[in-house]
Amino acid sequence: MRIVIVGASGTMGTYLADVLEGEGHELIRTSRSAKEIQVDTTSTQSIEAMFEKIGPFDALVTTAGETFVGPWKNLNDQNFKKGIEGKMMGQINLVLIGQHYINPKGSFTLITGALTHEPQINFANASAVNGAVESFVKAAAIELQNGIRINAVSPSVIENSPHYFPYFPGEIPTTMKQLEYLFRKSLFGAGTGNIIKP
Amino acid sequence: MRIVIVGASGTMGTYLADVLEGEGHELIRTSRSAKEIQVDTTSTQSIEAMFEKIGPFDALVTTAGETFVGPWKNLNDQNFKKGIEGKMMGQINLVLIGQHYINPKGSFTLITGALTHEPQINFANASAVNGAVESFVKAAAIELQNGIRINAVSPSVIENSPHYFPYFPGEIPTTMKQLEYLFRKSLFGAGTGNIIKP
Repeated sequence: MRIVIVGASGTMGTYLADVLEGEGHELIRTSRSAKEIQVDTTSTQSIEAMFEKIGPFDALVTTAGETFVGPWKNLNDQNFKKGIEGKMMGQINLVLIGQHYINPKGSFTLITGALTHEPQINFANASAVNGAVESFVKAAAIELQNGIRINAVSPSVIENSPHYFPYFPGEIPTTMKQLEYLFRKSLFGAGTGNIIKP
Repeated sequence: MRIVIVGASGTMGTYLADVLEGEGHELIRTSRSAKEIQVDTTSTQSIEAMFEKIGPFDALVTTAGETFVGPWKNLNDQNFKKGIEGKMMGQINLVLIGQHYINPKGSFTLITGALTHEPQINFANASAVNGAVESFVKAAAIELQNGIRINAVSPSVIENSPHYFPYFPGEIPTTMKQLEYLFRKSLFGAGTGNIIKP
């Protein structure tokens, strides 16, 4: 399977790409700092250029998406855009543009997180944009043609990012192995429009 | 109770304002076309000016928010902004700015809709921004101070908007009376962070 990973230089992306590559899949690793194919998902031109370089593919996984993290009192219209551009429209545009490049029966797997339904102090921007992505996934699932599927993986705080633990009191971390399973369900299962959780 | 209704010239806003006013509440009706206090919720300056004019209040209800409705093939980064500015950030900014004007123990009631979880063809933009607003409501509920509450009312297709029925096959319309109850639960109940459905 020819699999594009956007955000391949991050913790999740690197782990997942290594595992899948080890199984014989062709992995195309893209990120803002990737050596071969760079992409800035806040730019539709950059996304378009990425797909032109890559050509046809069978699956796209995104593990990227910045949001504004900080005190509620500092949250405003301006810094709300960080999540809208970074995690919401970045991922949505990968689908809206990528649908013209992906092979029939291909799949998109986006990333959200437990904050959609379990908010934490400082993370309102992430909650909102996660909610947007999850509802978009459900809507896109009934619109995409040619058997193309779409799902979101929604982990809790990631085991390999312990610096986040203090901000997620009581949340059972998602291990990298669990995360791998979540992505496998979207990549190799038949489901579409699902929010896949640990 | 001093209640601000944003979108007071629409079907829902007019109905709700009339009912509540009939019970003796003080209603401040605002919209893009309102006679006394106009507001364009896509502009933070306009929102700020509205609150300056109104002064302290006990509750704010929004029933306004435009989205892009149309064929999936026409959906792109540009027209996605219609929902982001109209229904998502419009409502979020009413809260982020309005929290500095609302009385202690006041409440915000935003509007979403069944499309968050039950998508329909042509409405992906609305689904996404509804999802954003619902998750924002959950996050804001744990951040707002002074006992200020926040909820979203999420009706199905509205009985008084029959021109939408063909786009919502099989969806049981929400009557105006039901809608009134949903808003009452947020306005006069004690709950916060809830998505209130028929």
